[in-house]
Amino acid sequence: MQFHLNGFRTGDPSVAPSASTDPEIKSAQSASEEVDVLIIGCGPAGLTLAAQLAAFPDITTMIVDQKPGPLELGQADGIACRTMEMFEAFGFSEKVLKEAYWVNETSFWKPDPENPRNIARSGRIQDTEDGLSEFPHVILNQARVHDFFLETMRNAPTRLDPHYGRRVAGLEIAQGEKAGTHPVSVTLERANENGAQTIETVRARYVVGCDGARSAVRQALGKPLLGDSANHAWGVMDVLAVSDFPDIRLKAAIHSANEGNVLIIPREGGYLVRLYIEMDKLNKDERVSNRNITSEQLIAAAQRILHPYTLDVKEVAWWSVYEIGQRLCASFDDRPEGAVDDRLPRVFIAGDACHTHSPKAGQGMNVSMQDSFNLGWKLAGVLRNILKPEVLNTYSDERQAIAQELIDFDREFAKMFSARPKTSGNGDDQGVDPNEFQRYFVKQGRFTAGTATQYSKSLLTGNGTHQNLTAGFPVGMRFHSAPVIRFADAKPMQLGHVVKADGRWRIFVFEGSGVTPTDQPARSGSMMKLCHFLADDLASPLLRYTPPGADIDAIIDLRAVYQTDHQSLSRDRLHPLLTPRKGRYGLIDHEKVFCPDLKTGPDIFDLRNIDRVTGCLVVVRPDQYVAEVLPLDAYAELTAFFDRVMIGRG
Amino acid sequence: MQFHLNGFRTGDPSVAPSASTDPEIKSAQSASEEVDVLIIGCGPAGLTLAAQLAAFPDITTMIVDQKPGPLELGQADGIACRTMEMFEAFGFSEKVLKEAYWVNETSFWKPDPENPRNIARSGRIQDTEDGLSEFPHVILNQARVHDFFLETMRNAPTRLDPHYGRRVAGLEIAQGEKAGTHPVSVTLERANENGAQTIETVRARYVVGCDGARSAVRQALGKPLLGDSANHAWGVMDVLAVSDFPDIRLKAAIHSANEGNVLIIPREGGYLVRLYIEMDKLNKDERVSNRNITSEQLIAAAQRILHPYTLDVKEVAWWSVYEIGQRLCASFDDRPEGAVDDRLPRVFIAGDACHTHSPKAGQGMNVSMQDSFNLGWKLAGVLRNILKPEVLNTYSDERQAIAQELIDFDREFAKMFSARPKTSGNGDDQGVDPNEFQRYFVKQGRFTAGTATQYSKSLLTGNGTHQNLTAGFPVGMRFHSAPVIRFADAKPMQLGHVVKADGRWRIFVFEGSGVTPTDQPARSGSMMKLCHFLADDLASPLLRYTPPGADIDAIIDLRAVYQTDHQSLSRDRLHPLLTPRKGRYGLIDHEKVFCPDLKTGPDIFDLRNIDRVTGCLVVVRPDQYVAEVLPLDAYAELTAFFDRVMIGRG
Repeated sequence: MQFHLNGFRTGDPSVAPSASTDPEIKSAQSASEEVDVLIIGCGPAGLTLAAQLAAFPDITTMIVDQKPGPLELGQADGIACRTMEMFEAFGFSEKVLKEAYWVNETSFWKPDPENPRNIARSGRIQDTEDGLSEFPHVILNQARVHDFFLETMRNAPTRLDPHYGRRVAGLEIAQGEKAGTHPVSVTLERANENGAQTIETVRARYVVGCDGARSAVRQALGKPLLGDSANHAWGVMDVLAVSDFPDIRLKAAIHSANEGNVLIIPREGGYLVRLYIEMDKLNKDERVSNRNITSEQLIAAAQRILHPYTLDVKEVAWWSVYEIGQRLCASFDDRPEGAVDDRLPRVFIAGDACHTHSPKAGQGMNVSMQDSFNLGWKLAGVLRNILKPEVLNTYSDERQAIAQELIDFDREFAKMFSARPKTSGNGDDQGVDPNEFQRYFVKQGRFTAGTATQYSKSLLTGNGTHQNLTAGFPVGMRFHSAPVIRFADAKPMQLGHVVKADGRWRIFVFEGSGVTPTDQPARSGSMMKLCHFLADDLASPLLRYTPPGADIDAIIDLRAVYQTDHQSLSRDRLHPLLTPRKGRYGLIDHEKVFCPDLKTGPDIFDLRNIDRVTGCLVVVRPDQYVAEVLPLDAYAELTAFFDRVMIGRG
Repeated sequence: MQFHLNGFRTGDPSVAPSASTDPEIKSAQSASEEVDVLIIGCGPAGLTLAAQLAAFPDITTMIVDQKPGPLELGQADGIACRTMEMFEAFGFSEKVLKEAYWVNETSFWKPDPENPRNIARSGRIQDTEDGLSEFPHVILNQARVHDFFLETMRNAPTRLDPHYGRRVAGLEIAQGEKAGTHPVSVTLERANENGAQTIETVRARYVVGCDGARSAVRQALGKPLLGDSANHAWGVMDVLAVSDFPDIRLKAAIHSANEGNVLIIPREGGYLVRLYIEMDKLNKDERVSNRNITSEQLIAAAQRILHPYTLDVKEVAWWSVYEIGQRLCASFDDRPEGAVDDRLPRVFIAGDACHTHSPKAGQGMNVSMQDSFNLGWKLAGVLRNILKPEVLNTYSDERQAIAQELIDFDREFAKMFSARPKTSGNGDDQGVDPNEFQRYFVKQGRFTAGTATQYSKSLLTGNGTHQNLTAGFPVGMRFHSAPVIRFADAKPMQLGHVVKADGRWRIFVFEGSGVTPTDQPARSGSMMKLCHFLADDLASPLLRYTPPGADIDAIIDLRAVYQTDHQSLSRDRLHPLLTPRKGRYGLIDHEKVFCPDLKTGPDIFDLRNIDRVTGCLVVVRPDQYVAEVLPLDAYAELTAFFDRVMIGRG
């Protein structure tokens, strides 16, 4: 954490100075009929976006929800490794780590071959492969995730709070001359205490529908969710129970011979456990709500599946029955199909509003938050006149493709999970071998961890021409953190944790030794030359895009990683750009330079397969994705990359 | 974190149900003229004690301070490893880790032999030796430490808040027949808004003076601080500055040839730095306040010492000049000297009220908090009728001896720090060789980390008869945590982190294999036999001291550590006492059993030198100190230990 830059302040440094009381920050947030961004929906997607935008005092954001107040009891609970990395960027990963259940291992159970009426453990594996992320896969009530985002919003300079009790009654996008600066009009119905309704109209530059599977915003855009609306019914319940099932505190996928399947997800706090129980196939037009399933029936089904183990339920904290349906919207913004290049998007949808699927793989909340994390910095960059508006087109392109992959994965995963187990006894060729299910689970581990996401070549994503310089930072994938030592204070830390959700781009420069085995000249000096270019050349993206008067790292944050150990590296080798003077006093920022951590195993150069002779330069987007990998002397390519996406200050 | 035991609750689990609204918890805290414990002073010692007592809804605690409100700007800032371990027990170590500066390395500077007018680095070392603690040594503004304790108090069932603006005007201890249940009367002067004063009288069972070096409580007891009241003057300042001194973000001890010494302590947030600067020797009767030292003079002195490096101070956040004095009170409670066995203590003093010393070694705040952490559980145990009142005698005995060690250390350390550096040029035989200072610093590392504290044999501390079973858990020293895997959910964690500040004792049982190289019988079963004894024998401390109706771990918390890896250990090997049924539903507590962590290096049996054949049993006090080490079959000794300190339920 860095603070006190512009003078010493007492109190909690995680509470930013308020934009409305700090004279240095332009007054911003107030209840208004005209806002930069209107977010519909306080679910994971909406709150992630709101927390991102709240960081910018020069953007006015409004977030509304039709519920009367914050969620107290959530449905989703799975938090993938990749999501934890994002929480770290928002500054609350340690709270989740402390409170959540950690999914360390997963066990698999199938009918006991010797007595198929019983279940028997068929396998037990590490849930997340070593080195996949510095964070574990965890489970925590969605309501607590909301709490952490709401706290982040309240502590941000804009002190952003949601407006509850507002239902979307209409949405219109003005085109052409009528558009003006705030082309989107949203009509909100507000239920008053006396039962009367007030109609409010908000005009926004941009509107984002994070309003769930029945999204009013999506419907206003006339965009359907396509796919299967229902096929299987699942029951889910959070219970306090006594059980002699040995893996009651492990994630466990259980296939019984004839009684169906259950997925056990232990929950935070040590006592609560979630069970997903497969119900019978539904008739085509039969709605879940008509089936009159009770929690007692769910418990009885779970007890049959777990046989010979017992399950004595003492309290049902929450339960529900729902249908699996894999559905997807063809695009995630308001641009008409076929006309995507003619106009820029003004309305977006994110999360369940554009994709729905089964909860079995624990992906829903995670993918929804990644949707709006992808969108937030783009909106902020365009609104702050840093990024070209065309960048907004990439949101739908990038996230729709990811949602399609998720739908495909989910269909396969749900099918395998729902299939009857193939046992030596039942001769059912349609069944799934539980061992095969386990193999599939392992293979898909990176996907469910959220770390397999790779964006295609685009305005924002390079084509991997120089990927040979570092196999460990694939272009289009998230910047994979690794341990380093901070040079100035010898602190062991994760390099990826310098990427905060602050809308800034990062350039990580990994030093090359310049020494090849056959040819041993003196140090090549490519790091110093690159710094000279960035500091002094008119083509430098830092000079070209940093607003006058702003700190040199305000738009693009340069970080250097040397190969020399931190006690041997001399401060003389650092270009002044790596100890930049910042803030009202011109204090030195000492946190730009890193050295390898030689204590904890292979160093970052080995872990990420970085060419030690040439080094490399990694451009990282504000949402932690690798945009480009370049050699240290690829000045023209570096300039060209930023010219493509940024608006010059000249 | 464990929660939801007595039913599912929404919201933040770190906020305990309020004693005043939860019908299951007896109503307690209210502004009252009669309290169980009255704490004078909201410094580190007072708040640690208040946070400890706030955990018990059946104890009424009042904490007062003469200041008008919470501290905003603290003086102390060093947080030793041992203190971080205590913060973990109070549940906020992760907040400190996130916000604090980490003291990873310390550098030493002396006059440059080639040009003694300049300083040159003479050494650079790791600040804390590997494996000393699972926590680093950190630096954080004392005011933030206060904030975390205040939050802990507010979230406790008693919702304890300090009463500010109260000054102690008198204290009386009634003796004999007059004593009654609340023998200590304290008169408090309260300054009202209109300038008038109100007098309040509070009657308490116990009073604890945490009211600083000029303690009114100590004075009321007629106990002087003995020792040197002043010899050297030091200046200290927290500054935002620009410097080209290479180690400006490292802790650095700098001895110049002729300009004096400075200790640099980088501070939280990346920009702030503290400098301790030695001023000239004082005349005997000269008070610091009379010397009219200005912050400009301090800055000028620092600049001279740092030559040839520059220090351009932009803002002085806080500064002070003070005298070093090593002073100590002969006892820390109200018992008259020589009559210590005749009566039990009713009034205690802690922290600066009983010992003062120089701040150079960063010990003051740490030792003060450890004082009252030592006292808190003893007071709670006696008030709750669990511990024999004689236990209260051990507070002064234990902590006075530690304070004496600190004073001795500080005198030596301050002397070495203040001495002129011995250089080849100046022929000064009285000087200190900077290399010798560095060696001394390394040697004393365990002491300054707070991990060298060892309590002597007493009512509470065994005599080490069975210390050969585990060299790594010395009797009388703090329970040294090590990595383990929790059996039920395969979570990698620190074993020591199960010791929370909840007033409970712990018995850690380390399984013995029962197999010797020459004689290879089957498993000895000593763990199972011990559990049978603890569960069924009338001599079992668990049966003897657990109140009727309470959970079996309410007073003594049994934890087992097996040698078998967690995937191979069978649940059949666990006695039911290791999966106890708890709370209103009789839910199973799954967090009592641990296995070795075989991934991170040597396992806990090797790390703590535990006899793998016999195993061992470690009794740990509520303040994390090892009370006794025993063989697994030493039932009689185990019974005898608890009989010495606890009040039976029979």
